[in-house]
Amino acid sequence: MDGEHELIARLRTLTERAAEGQPARVAIASGDDAAVTVATGAIVTSVDAAVEGVHFRLDTTTPRAAGRKALAAALSDLAAMGAEAGEIYVILGIPDSLAGDAVMELAAGIAEVAGEHRAPVLGGDVTQAPALWLGLTVVGYAPSAAALVARSGGRPGDVVAVTGELGGAAAGLELLERPELGEALDLETANSLRDRQRNPAPRLRAGQVLAAAGTRAMIDVSDGLGADCGHLASASGVRIEVDLARVPVAPGVGEVASRVGLDPEELVASGGEDYELLACLPPERLAGAAASLREIGLPLTAIGSVREGDGVTLVDAKGAPRAARGFDHLRPPTRRRRARRTRLGPRTGQHD
Amino acid sequence: MDGEHELIARLRTLTERAAEGQPARVAIASGDDAAVTVATGAIVTSVDAAVEGVHFRLDTTTPRAAGRKALAAALSDLAAMGAEAGEIYVILGIPDSLAGDAVMELAAGIAEVAGEHRAPVLGGDVTQAPALWLGLTVVGYAPSAAALVARSGGRPGDVVAVTGELGGAAAGLELLERPELGEALDLETANSLRDRQRNPAPRLRAGQVLAAAGTRAMIDVSDGLGADCGHLASASGVRIEVDLARVPVAPGVGEVASRVGLDPEELVASGGEDYELLACLPPERLAGAAASLREIGLPLTAIGSVREGDGVTLVDAKGAPRAARGFDHLRPPTRRRRARRTRLGPRTGQHD
Repeated sequence: MDGEHELIARLRTLTERAAEGQPARVAIASGDDAAVTVATGAIVTSVDAAVEGVHFRLDTTTPRAAGRKALAAALSDLAAMGAEAGEIYVILGIPDSLAGDAVMELAAGIAEVAGEHRAPVLGGDVTQAPALWLGLTVVGYAPSAAALVARSGGRPGDVVAVTGELGGAAAGLELLERPELGEALDLETANSLRDRQRNPAPRLRAGQVLAAAGTRAMIDVSDGLGADCGHLASASGVRIEVDLARVPVAPGVGEVASRVGLDPEELVASGGEDYELLACLPPERLAGAAASLREIGLPLTAIGSVREGDGVTLVDAKGAPRAARGFDHLRPPTRRRRARRTRLGPRTGQHD
Repeated sequence: MDGEHELIARLRTLTERAAEGQPARVAIASGDDAAVTVATGAIVTSVDAAVEGVHFRLDTTTPRAAGRKALAAALSDLAAMGAEAGEIYVILGIPDSLAGDAVMELAAGIAEVAGEHRAPVLGGDVTQAPALWLGLTVVGYAPSAAALVARSGGRPGDVVAVTGELGGAAAGLELLERPELGEALDLETANSLRDRQRNPAPRLRAGQVLAAAGTRAMIDVSDGLGADCGHLASASGVRIEVDLARVPVAPGVGEVASRVGLDPEELVASGGEDYELLACLPPERLAGAAASLREIGLPLTAIGSVREGDGVTLVDAKGAPRAARGFDHLRPPTRRRRARRTRLGPRTGQHD
């Protein structure tokens, strides 16, 4: 049996287990030239890449965690539209140097998250490659396009609100890269921050709740609060103003920030990868949306407002505006890390 | 402007041009967290990877040709189901060493093929990567799942038929790698073979015609005639017998094969990448299917039959059975090339 076919067969067994209870819409699952589903309504599709050395490092994370996080990040795009998760398609590029067991662990991580969201892995492609990479296609559904929320619907007067807490993933990354920082925290807090970085939860249910509650524009916080506000502002043709003092911050973020010489607001505004949802909604819909989210155990906090104009203004605790940017996947990791520090350091907080 | 966002913006302009006249089913195109389409019926989805050094080499092909071929190969999977092409999603992994112009050429090649099939590129992800790779997601449609053709419907008594001619892509690869072989051929024939390798045509219209004409099982010839017959046989739970003497062979394949010391039937049976369609259909439907295909200028040739049992028997011109295998993407290119020669050489034609 050829390597590719054996691996695909093993992966298929694994992912079929995750697909148990798969919705009736699946007509032909993996193993044919293409998968076939049957649906009526809106189909939501997003593709997402994760490359070793750019998006994750196997010296600070396990293959299983890398697989989990890659799929969670991809599903977060469906959450940001207010869609229900449907099916998943996986491309794996595998270097010769990676052990078969590591590949299966990676696939197991993908299958776990797929199972948690009842989203079967319906197809894939496996290829030899110079470095480990994943290409994930996620498909979601909604009864109609009108039930979904784009980035472009924000209107002046809307409230800007965010689910959960921010900054945890960025602080967790610092902890993973510099374990000695953990001494400043109790174990539970440190583990919780590391988990935010390694094992994010796509807010699929929350996205549907927010869509139903009258949200006009939505995005997930993946690039960083400042950058993602920028995407919303640009798509909606508005200006977004955020009061950083109102942004809910994960416990321990302040301690980590001070240990690495950063302002906690820097981590919160620019860290990214929290995968919370950022929503623009009319002020009169805020209380209802918050109440609905409370039922699924997630806070919703108003952190700013939509204004006429363009761009993003992040107002810090002293009332001063500051710039914040996300990160650019085309920069190699070392440059990116350095660039992030430089861009976000309090001494270089100018607009650029 | 960050590199990623600038490149994505340039790619978007390019692909939007290809999306002109896009079907009414597109509700939200690229630029949001996900794309949204609205459809009723069967949705056909396939993902496909192309990696430099594994699937293509930029020293024997151009970025534009690599982009064209990668998308054509992906669309061929939709053709093999009998689906109409719908939307395309592109992941690009780009090494620092690749010039921005080369990336745009690659994207232009993708956009050309997308435009030729009126299949808009609706989304994508661009990332820095150690080597150039593409991850393509293609989505197609049919009125219902029953209108599509899986690999699994072949029944004993069916005729096995193939569209067009085989062997051209394999012979073209030999010509591209050893240009001196071209001396054995007139220029037009040599160019035609090279074109089969570099610029394959996905048989989308033919796939729909064959599906409507009563085809019971179908696959595209990507791995090689022997390997793809094996996939059909395995999925259908039958044995497939092919008479190699009846397989239509592209002009010039015999000359190339003899120059490289191969039996022409080897190239035809195992070369792959012709992207013709291989169909199992009841004998009484063959003439009608062939007549319908003739209207779109494509021959359909009966080359074998479906029997009880399992596996594939390729009967050569002397009436002797022989083995044939496709190639395994997990093997690196050098091993693969060597393995292919070894596997297919007349002296090692045993079953394995």
